Amino acid sequence: MFTDNYELTMLQAALHSGTAHRRGVFEAFARRLPDGRRYGVVGGTGRILEGLENFRFGTDELDFLANNKVVNDETLAWLANFKFSGDIYGYAEGELYFPNSPILTIESTFAEACILETYVLSVLNHDSAIASAASRMIGAAGSRPCIEMGSRRTHEESAVAASRAAVIAGFHSTSNLACGLRYGVLTQGTAAHSFTLLHDTEEDAFRAQLASLGTGTTLLVDTYDVETAVRLAVDLAGPALGGVRLDSGDLVAQAHEVRSLLDSLGNTSTRITVTSDLDEFAIAALAAAPVDSYGVGTSLVTGSGAPTASMVYKLVSREDDHGEFVSVAKAAKNKASVGGKKYALRRLNERGTATSEVVGIGSMPANDGNDRPLIQQFIADGVLTPGWTGAEGVRRAAARHTASMAEMPGAARRLQRGDPVIPTEYEQLATAT
Amino acid sequence: MFTDNYELTMLQAALHSGTAHRRGVFEAFARRLPDGRRYGVVGGTGRILEGLENFRFGTDELDFLANNKVVNDETLAWLANFKFSGDIYGYAEGELYFPNSPILTIESTFAEACILETYVLSVLNHDSAIASAASRMIGAAGSRPCIEMGSRRTHEESAVAASRAAVIAGFHSTSNLACGLRYGVLTQGTAAHSFTLLHDTEEDAFRAQLASLGTGTTLLVDTYDVETAVRLAVDLAGPALGGVRLDSGDLVAQAHEVRSLLDSLGNTSTRITVTSDLDEFAIAALAAAPVDSYGVGTSLVTGSGAPTASMVYKLVSREDDHGEFVSVAKAAKNKASVGGKKYALRRLNERGTATSEVVGIGSMPANDGNDRPLIQQFIADGVLTPGWTGAEGVRRAAARHTASMAEMPGAARRLQRGDPVIPTEYEQLATAT
Repeated sequence: MFTDNYELTMLQAALHSGTAHRRGVFEAFARRLPDGRRYGVVGGTGRILEGLENFRFGTDELDFLANNKVVNDETLAWLANFKFSGDIYGYAEGELYFPNSPILTIESTFAEACILETYVLSVLNHDSAIASAASRMIGAAGSRPCIEMGSRRTHEESAVAASRAAVIAGFHSTSNLACGLRYGVLTQGTAAHSFTLLHDTEEDAFRAQLASLGTGTTLLVDTYDVETAVRLAVDLAGPALGGVRLDSGDLVAQAHEVRSLLDSLGNTSTRITVTSDLDEFAIAALAAAPVDSYGVGTSLVTGSGAPTASMVYKLVSREDDHGEFVSVAKAAKNKASVGGKKYALRRLNERGTATSEVVGIGSMPANDGNDRPLIQQFIADGVLTPGWTGAEGVRRAAARHTASMAEMPGAARRLQRGDPVIPTEYEQLATAT
Repeated sequence: MFTDNYELTMLQAALHSGTAHRRGVFEAFARRLPDGRRYGVVGGTGRILEGLENFRFGTDELDFLANNKVVNDETLAWLANFKFSGDIYGYAEGELYFPNSPILTIESTFAEACILETYVLSVLNHDSAIASAASRMIGAAGSRPCIEMGSRRTHEESAVAASRAAVIAGFHSTSNLACGLRYGVLTQGTAAHSFTLLHDTEEDAFRAQLASLGTGTTLLVDTYDVETAVRLAVDLAGPALGGVRLDSGDLVAQAHEVRSLLDSLGNTSTRITVTSDLDEFAIAALAAAPVDSYGVGTSLVTGSGAPTASMVYKLVSREDDHGEFVSVAKAAKNKASVGGKKYALRRLNERGTATSEVVGIGSMPANDGNDRPLIQQFIADGVLTPGWTGAEGVRRAAARHTASMAEMPGAARRLQRGDPVIPTEYEQLATAT
């Protein structure tokens, strides 16, 4: 039922006119990247595939649709028997994308592909927005680990998906336990100010945490006075103290002060974690500060200014009455799209650096020898190809992301606003449909 | 498991130190409104109460926590038996809020209240962000209905919650079927460009839609040429044609042209719905155009520039060893908070117009006669008060929102950036804890 009303009324009208069973090719793509971004990161493909297994209409759903007269009996009967039987292919999760990259293609009857529109776009738009923001943070953080801590700033289920997307883009771990449970991702955490305030003194709180969680734990040192807290922490835990967390104030200055203090007390291996509304720019500003890891929350789960990837889902080709596929595209002002089934490869130069995104209309563009084909098959005739979902899917997507970033020109990592780091080029064959 | 790792490790440490069973008062509030906003709208309270019923730790969750050594056996045993037994009170859903309004208060043992932090904040931060944006759109739309159509631009479960929040803030209906199913909200829709493209001609598509859905349906008229499509629609449907939808181009100019054309063809009662990346400013710009309803998507589900409400959850009071409550607050730079259990009322002048938000610390502020108390009890000793959840909760919240908006000074509806429309004032009694 992650479906818009109009998908089912269109289904009804198409069943009525007999066009519902025409095969069609729907394509999910982004007309543009968020303002100033150099690249996007595909997120959500694995979740789409997982969700499709349960994309059915049960008794409660059918009763609702019937009682509210959303659709007629013929349509209800069709929905009751729905199970996706077509093909789904596209970019691997974790892969980079650019304007008009054919990120996900769904080929089936119009009826089957039409009703997936909202679900497919919800997942891709959300997860890709988060993965794209996360990747920039990872670039800014360099070799220092980033920990995802944004669950409280977004819807409770978005939080799990955001955490998953962050790990795909290179985050080291997450505070979100549901993500750990579902995807085998490492979970981590420190402590909150409330824990300190619960106790009569900061010393009581630190003693309690160390006694229960061991000296390797990370103590939050800014509830009252940072210097006092750091000295107390070292007094209580000794040189084996795992870490301290700073969550307020001028983080650059404070990181230097705390590092000096820790070192002067002999705690040279105690780590400093910083949090407090970090985004990719704040992380970059901390590059020269003695920080060991970043906890990132709000900016991550809100896509750092771009909370949705603005992908659309368009019919690009469909059968006619003779069973021949014809390219279709709307001509609407400022929203025109390119018809025809798409193929894509990433053009690489002899040094393995990406130079363009080549999209073929109707057939695969010619590979000049170094190019890397981008389209993967996820579902064939309704059957899922193994390896794209669950914990394995997340691991593979993270590896894919690392490899794809390594191909990019260095300018991809620039944080300042600019054009996509490589252009998208169409290659159309004469016979294209 | 909508929980952050640190909540459970803090729980473990507090169980170990014996402080876990101290009673504590946690408060959810926003230090500030999103930049330039005049007011916020409380969203999500009903969903929190619904979710609490299922906030348990089952076998899968406990196994995960054990296998990954997140917490020790004592903590696992406590979690296995967890069921919230405390009190929850605060602002009714749909109510307006201002900086430091005590929106939700959770009073229980530290252990019970601590582990709810992430879930409570996720729901409040997401749903309030959407409700707050939606309310501004409703103000801009005046008496014209707004239809929520943003599901595809956000996570599939956020979409349901966003749709619910939009209706609370005054939206007429939603495209989201899952929201209709769960909350009894009216669902609506038109048709997509893909439906036109599926057919060999626009005429075939319009005929199919009219034949199946009746002449009262809304036809999408901008797939090819708008004027041609409007003439065709009127030809096929006659004067009873329900509506046409415009989704691209210069909507103001096009609405005037289409209205003139429809009127000249005799279709004076055919409605015009506009969509296409509308936000409160675009809606306001269409106020003088002959538009009958607005379909709002991306801007709604992303909070129109403020995708999270930035609420925090702080321990403000807790028992000491003698069972006495003491106010607590952290002193951290730029993030200090105000300790003590809070009460609140809205100060109204003799004409019933709000003049300030009065927050009492430790006790209810004196009511000057016109003032309206704001705190409602949702859960007492673990038992839910009826009326706040489900479809009834949504209906009541929408009514609450309308009534609360009616009390506000006219400046609340201004779209340009400004300060909160009423100030928040603290009233502290000498004996406050």
